[in-house]
Amino acid sequence: MTILRLRIVFDDAMLGPGKAELLERIGKTGSIAAAGRDMGMSYKRAWMLVEEMNRAFREPLVISTRGGPGGGGAQLTESGARVLELYHDIVAKAENAAAARIGTLEAMLRPAQPGDISDRK
Amino acid sequence: MTILRLRIVFDDAMLGPGKAELLERIGKTGSIAAAGRDMGMSYKRAWMLVEEMNRAFREPLVISTRGGPGGGGAQLTESGARVLELYHDIVAKAENAAAARIGTLEAMLRPAQPGDISDRK
Repeated sequence: MTILRLRIVFDDAMLGPGKAELLERIGKTGSIAAAGRDMGMSYKRAWMLVEEMNRAFREPLVISTRGGPGGGGAQLTESGARVLELYHDIVAKAENAAAARIGTLEAMLRPAQPGDISDRK
Repeated sequence: MTILRLRIVFDDAMLGPGKAELLERIGKTGSIAAAGRDMGMSYKRAWMLVEEMNRAFREPLVISTRGGPGGGGAQLTESGARVLELYHDIVAKAENAAAARIGTLEAMLRPAQPGDISDRK
């Protein structure tokens, strides 16, 4: 199935599939470390991405408590949930608007041959 | 100005901003090497991307003559021009469909402060 991966490049910030997935997993797991781990990302990188997002927006997208008995926790703020929802809406709108042309491109592709080694990475 | 960078992920192939720009520059320069060079890409990588695209589609997107008095040349086929046009159309449709929501996201961004060091890479 064809999918669109979409990166929004603002003047001084970016939002793409990686940050969106990180936000989503933080919302589900309640932990930046666990969210990053699920994505095969170092703790340091997950924190860096969260800090980048928190700096980029007027209000933080993620609030966290470091350490403590439970090892600290994190959750999406209202702004975080809103940004994630907007990102998903943007992808859905884009896929919908482009669907006919994506179908035209698909029809131009060479059909997969049995035994082909996929180029997909 | 906010822009969308859009990667179309097919079952066994991908088309994104890099390949689209490479096709466009091959069409303009008549040379895979020159097109790659303009993008800061090695000759080998430019060739690899062209071969990947030519394999992925039923008809080649680029035809080339290697060597010869003029050092060889390359041009987009009709399919190549069509794929490039479709890619640009898809980006335009996606941007248009998502414009209102992108505006909402932009309004949530922290305004740039004088003296800020840009995070943009």
